[in-house]
Amino acid sequence: MRTRFVLIQTSHAGNVGGVARALKVMGFDDLVLVQPRWANVLRREETIQRASGANDVLAKTRVVETLDEALDGMTHLCATAMTPRDFGPPTRAPREHFQTLLATPEPPEGVAFLFGSERFGMRNEDVYRCHVALSIPTAPDFGSLNLAAAVQLIAYDWRQALGGFEAPASVPEYRQADAQAIGGMLTHLEQALVAVDFLDPAAPKKLMPRLNQLFNRAAPSEEEIHILRGVAKAMLQVAEKARR
Amino acid sequence: MRTRFVLIQTSHAGNVGGVARALKVMGFDDLVLVQPRWANVLRREETIQRASGANDVLAKTRVVETLDEALDGMTHLCATAMTPRDFGPPTRAPREHFQTLLATPEPPEGVAFLFGSERFGMRNEDVYRCHVALSIPTAPDFGSLNLAAAVQLIAYDWRQALGGFEAPASVPEYRQADAQAIGGMLTHLEQALVAVDFLDPAAPKKLMPRLNQLFNRAAPSEEEIHILRGVAKAMLQVAEKARR
Repeated sequence: MRTRFVLIQTSHAGNVGGVARALKVMGFDDLVLVQPRWANVLRREETIQRASGANDVLAKTRVVETLDEALDGMTHLCATAMTPRDFGPPTRAPREHFQTLLATPEPPEGVAFLFGSERFGMRNEDVYRCHVALSIPTAPDFGSLNLAAAVQLIAYDWRQALGGFEAPASVPEYRQADAQAIGGMLTHLEQALVAVDFLDPAAPKKLMPRLNQLFNRAAPSEEEIHILRGVAKAMLQVAEKARR
Repeated sequence: MRTRFVLIQTSHAGNVGGVARALKVMGFDDLVLVQPRWANVLRREETIQRASGANDVLAKTRVVETLDEALDGMTHLCATAMTPRDFGPPTRAPREHFQTLLATPEPPEGVAFLFGSERFGMRNEDVYRCHVALSIPTAPDFGSLNLAAAVQLIAYDWRQALGGFEAPASVPEYRQADAQAIGGMLTHLEQALVAVDFLDPAAPKKLMPRLNQLFNRAAPSEEEIHILRGVAKAMLQVAEKARR
């Protein structure tokens, strides 16, 4: 399946750069600009600055005169429009739509996401060509998404729907200590707390059950139990010295 | 539950504006800046320009000197860090983490999302304070998310996890035509195609079954059946005229 992003009549060069970066970070690289405001938009300073390393995406980007030229090979067109159009395609939230689309027995060969200009959005006649209008759910009183931000969200949801990238592995090696290990550590700690005169064995005031609950919630690892027993040992040693 | 976004040592004023907009569009408004590069960042031109109407969020934004001052009321700290740290909190993808977090019997009272500087990310000692390190799954060879884009994605996923906003209703009124209606329309169309000499009744070459499949896939509405029958009628009329 191919994925393409099409920006129609984009006016801010910075947004074109931001879009290139947003695509690359989600593993896409097919960008077409229809009638951008600046003919040299791919070489403008703001574009390159905001692209921040996504130069290969910019290098591949095509600039064309009509929407039609942007749609070769594309079989499923997604408008992105905040306001649904009468007679237009059905409006759906991206996540739901992507799930449905990929669950069909024969998913489309080419999926294009169309974005209108920053100020006016998409023209009705461009929306009418589309199979669906995607609407990102936003706050009821403020739906003004920046163009590059909208592309970023759609690219993220689409990439996730396609299976996603792996998040970096959770690094810390972690073997949770069992109740026996926590019990042993608490006994050790109790002796230390008595030794430093914090805990009065004659009036323990439920300190140890409280600490037991605290450590249960913390779910310490075996290594952390070693650390805590080391602390208890040091407390006992210093109390011993102080008593001499 | 309260939600706060904390930007640490942000250097680009435009990003602060972009973040304010990203929050507002997802219905959040609690932003704290720790040691931003520009002391007057909330009044700078790029900030206000990129905020694009999220001035109320900027007006509420606090600027503080230390991370500690940003954390009052926050009970669950999420670092956002591309590279996991040894001895740091576990690294998780945001969507998975949010589901787990909200499924716990007593979800946290205050959730803070911490973002480091554009160039250096978060300091180790700030990451160590956090309960989790969120890592947005990105392309293996290019994980360079713009700061405002990263905030936008986290704010979106968090808002969706919290229940989301409604997407605008699918506007077009749509009552799918039944097989009887499609059959009637096809009979009408068949007469018209014969009348305009496109279909030879002596050698129909499976044209009608093909059109039947086409219209089955298109799943026309009752209104669309009316339109198609209108077309058939007009074809018949013009053919009648031509025959005179």
